[in-house]
Amino acid sequence: MTQANSFRLTGTCPDRVGIVARIAGFIAGLGGSIVSANQYEDTETEMFYMRYVVSAAGLGVDAEGFREAFEPVGRELEMDWSVRESGQLQRVVLMASRQDHCLADLLHLHRSGDLAFDPVCVISNHEDLRDLVEWHGVPYHCVPVPPAGEGKQAAFEATSTLIREARPDTIVLARYMQILPPWLCAEYPNRIINIHHSFLPSFAGARPYHQAFRRGVKLTGATCHYVTEELDAGPIIDQDVIRIRHHDSIEELVRRGKDVEKRVLARGLRYHLEDRVLVQGNKTVVFS
Amino acid sequence: MTQANSFRLTGTCPDRVGIVARIAGFIAGLGGSIVSANQYEDTETEMFYMRYVVSAAGLGVDAEGFREAFEPVGRELEMDWSVRESGQLQRVVLMASRQDHCLADLLHLHRSGDLAFDPVCVISNHEDLRDLVEWHGVPYHCVPVPPAGEGKQAAFEATSTLIREARPDTIVLARYMQILPPWLCAEYPNRIINIHHSFLPSFAGARPYHQAFRRGVKLTGATCHYVTEELDAGPIIDQDVIRIRHHDSIEELVRRGKDVEKRVLARGLRYHLEDRVLVQGNKTVVFS
Amino acid sequence: MTQANSFRLTGTCPDRVGIVARIAGFIAGLGGSIVSANQYEDTETEMFYMRYVVSAAGLGVDAEGFREAFEPVGRELEMDWSVRESGQLQRVVLMASRQDHCLADLLHLHRSGDLAFDPVCVISNHEDLRDLVEWHGVPYHCVPVPPAGEGKQAAFEATSTLIREARPDTIVLARYMQILPPWLCAEYPNRIINIHHSFLPSFAGARPYHQAFRRGVKLTGATCHYVTEELDAGPIIDQDVIRIRHHDSIEELVRRGKDVEKRVLARGLRYHLEDRVLVQGNKTVVFS
Amino acid sequence: MTQANSFRLTGTCPDRVGIVARIAGFIAGLGGSIVSANQYEDTETEMFYMRYVVSAAGLGVDAEGFREAFEPVGRELEMDWSVRESGQLQRVVLMASRQDHCLADLLHLHRSGDLAFDPVCVISNHEDLRDLVEWHGVPYHCVPVPPAGEGKQAAFEATSTLIREARPDTIVLARYMQILPPWLCAEYPNRIINIHHSFLPSFAGARPYHQAFRRGVKLTGATCHYVTEELDAGPIIDQDVIRIRHHDSIEELVRRGKDVEKRVLARGLRYHLEDRVLVQGNKTVVFS
Repeated sequence: MTQANSFRLTGTCPDRVGIVARIAGFIAGLGGSIVSANQYEDTETEMFYMRYVVSAAGLGVDAEGFREAFEPVGRELEMDWSVRESGQLQRVVLMASRQDHCLADLLHLHRSGDLAFDPVCVISNHEDLRDLVEWHGVPYHCVPVPPAGEGKQAAFEATSTLIREARPDTIVLARYMQILPPWLCAEYPNRIINIHHSFLPSFAGARPYHQAFRRGVKLTGATCHYVTEELDAGPIIDQDVIRIRHHDSIEELVRRGKDVEKRVLARGLRYHLEDRVLVQGNKTVVFS
Repeated sequence: MTQANSFRLTGTCPDRVGIVARIAGFIAGLGGSIVSANQYEDTETEMFYMRYVVSAAGLGVDAEGFREAFEPVGRELEMDWSVRESGQLQRVVLMASRQDHCLADLLHLHRSGDLAFDPVCVISNHEDLRDLVEWHGVPYHCVPVPPAGEGKQAAFEATSTLIREARPDTIVLARYMQILPPWLCAEYPNRIINIHHSFLPSFAGARPYHQAFRRGVKLTGATCHYVTEELDAGPIIDQDVIRIRHHDSIEELVRRGKDVEKRVLARGLRYHLEDRVLVQGNKTVVFS
Repeated sequence: MTQANSFRLTGTCPDRVGIVARIAGFIAGLGGSIVSANQYEDTETEMFYMRYVVSAAGLGVDAEGFREAFEPVGRELEMDWSVRESGQLQRVVLMASRQDHCLADLLHLHRSGDLAFDPVCVISNHEDLRDLVEWHGVPYHCVPVPPAGEGKQAAFEATSTLIREARPDTIVLARYMQILPPWLCAEYPNRIINIHHSFLPSFAGARPYHQAFRRGVKLTGATCHYVTEELDAGPIIDQDVIRIRHHDSIEELVRRGKDVEKRVLARGLRYHLEDRVLVQGNKTVVFS
Repeated sequence: MTQANSFRLTGTCPDRVGIVARIAGFIAGLGGSIVSANQYEDTETEMFYMRYVVSAAGLGVDAEGFREAFEPVGRELEMDWSVRESGQLQRVVLMASRQDHCLADLLHLHRSGDLAFDPVCVISNHEDLRDLVEWHGVPYHCVPVPPAGEGKQAAFEATSTLIREARPDTIVLARYMQILPPWLCAEYPNRIINIHHSFLPSFAGARPYHQAFRRGVKLTGATCHYVTEELDAGPIIDQDVIRIRHHDSIEELVRRGKDVEKRVLARGLRYHLEDRVLVQGNKTVVFS
């Protein structure tokens, strides 16, 4: 939780003999103490995924120095890697429409120190949530999105500009009920996180609770995933379900679903913020 | 659990004022003691669903007498109803192919007295499970099913004849890996129970664990449902899920899935055997 | 959820033949439509528990009229009963100390209309939560509680006075970290609800997460219960657990526990507010 | 699951900088490919726990050679370590009394190849389970245990002799309803696994379902743990719970509990057989 400062080294490379020895040897060579280490060898694709957390205390280098030192190792292993300092909070743009259960939960977790991130701003297509957001001391931008046509395109351009100015590490769609245009999704690959209110791939698209009600399922759920250009089809980070019964109305499903939505989004976002999620094609490796 | 003998009165009728009073008045008029009572008013369709368990002790009638006495009440309420004596075990035909986890579990539950039913026989399209079944003292019929053509049709006719001779109340597909022809499904509406090894409607059809693996879901599940003419689309009785991780191979999914499959099938079958399931269009009311 | 107005008739009486007929007959006699009905016959104690929801539309009486009409029936059945109008919100006094996860969740559920109650005021022994509470428009009273002695007694008397003035139906200890004196508990039997941060009866008393950590359990939980004079020993309304792992520190248990605490408290409180909980000695009947 | 042959190197040692580098360097030096690697640094005790699985293919050594080569590394790190070949099945003695749900499940998992172990024999204090066990081709020894006195001591000596002759790696108490004498427990530290039918530490000792029923808990569970000389107090390997309701009788708790008992025992035993469990005082590290 509240750990001393540390560096999180994550990476993906072709699998071969000796990678762990190379990485661990590099860290030991710097006098670094490994706080936690995870690795996964995917035998199907012969790829290697890893996450190392190294205590900053005792190391003679800062994050930049750590990166410089690791650079030749990464090149040697043909690794796609990154280093993040645990104390350096990610800049997060939150987006929501009218429902506030997810947004309120994330802002509360931020405020209480239970989820470490920097909420740069909230962007909404409605005014409803301004009070809540501003009480938390977070800037609120309202960009209404018309149903279609030129106005809609302009709205997304305005939204895109706001996002760009916020220089976010991560964008969270906390029940933002507009479909982002593909060009906007493409700008932030594996950096836009959405919560979908069904157990994907069941009930993708609009009104999933209505779909679930019609089909008569006995569990309903929520899915936290990265946004790609294809709707509700991106890499899944986390999912969960709740039991429902024949006497639950659609309104009851919606109400009870909020609880699982906020829980799954908070958990998935935590994994992401702690650099526990590595994307593997259309799937994710989650070192939970 | 091990209750004294009782009558289970289940029924469905158009909703109106006074149904419960009429039913409970009828039972009180016979001097009957209500062991448990469930009812559900579906406001959308304005239909009423109910299950009453009445202690047989103290009643001056047997099941047949109870039915005769209730007949005018049922007619008056335009109710589709039935009465079953709790002590009268349902005749069940079990069907399986090669995998035995569900079948072994059901036979064990039967043998230990934890699930009350009469396993009339097992029908399989393979010989693999004969030893297990015969050790339990249950007759085993093997009807191989050729891939296609006339032989396949003949095989299902032979299967149908075996089922008919067994005079089953219920047929359980405990991982029977053939698709029953529509004419056979139609003979036993709401009486054939299948276990599908995914969380429906996700991953209907063949090889659901492979589909789940490809999609990268974080939970996988099993669904117990009534068989209709449309594959994997019948009314769902029960479902459950287990958490899976990025390092679980397909083989691991299959192995871990067995546990949830047998659990969901046993639970769904119990609901059915205890007359807790009422079909409502393509959904179920389950008085669990 | 958002139902039309209705009356909730709950009651407990000695079991005998004909109770349901008598109740349902009474309701039908008023022309009342039963929205939902639950009953439970406890065979060990031979007691009968019930909850009937009757649509107010179509009835020619208001809640008071309904009570008057039911009075002779209740007397005849020797029933301990009550009638509440669904639209009449319970007056709830919330109490908390410094941690705000439960309180913030309840206030948010109130504000969004997802949990129907009237938050009369918040009483705390600290000032920390004033901003949050007042933003929600709810009066905040701070009554510091000294460690022991006369000052402590006086503090509880002041607290008791504040409670009495608030005329609450229900008092919720949403992580109020003081032990209420027995005389105060005794004033509100089955009306004070507490959330304890362990899976009772494991780890009653102080610092349950520390106790759980020391014992090395693999699940930890939370328990929502009515407060009695014996600490953490009152009737349990609801419980839930989360999985923990060897690498979870105490701080991590505390953080992850918050999620299950707020969930269990919200769920248990909802059951209570909807008159779904009937106390049966030191246990509860919950018509969920 | 069905993996190619591999070596599992597990160990515990004082934490210091460079352990992972030393281990991984050793494996790379042998040309070994790491199939999976887990490590855990306990900051409180400053101890290091690890499990490495190394593919045997490509290594020029067998298990004995691997041990010899690792010996100086282990000494250097002051490590308590062991190496097991994945293909070498553990010899397991199963013990049970009259209830067969756990035993039948384990024998079925063995028979279907879903749990890899060598069931050397079953020891029971009753004759009831002989048929089941012998059908599985496993030797059955019945050693009745008189209530107390000399006969009881003699019975445990006979039991101990049978165990010793079986040369087990692991002993599983699959609902064996006798308390083993301390001297027998002490002979097999961290090698006797018990399933207790409650969520420990709640309801240790006799008749846990009765205790749970009296307390009115809303969840009940099962605990798989190593047996120590203190009853139901050994290191916990795994736990799980199921939801129960006010109308569940004790018999119903017992019946539903069987399902969670067999599930938790099978899972805990699997972790143990796959060398995923390292004992840490009275707790366990489980690399699941």
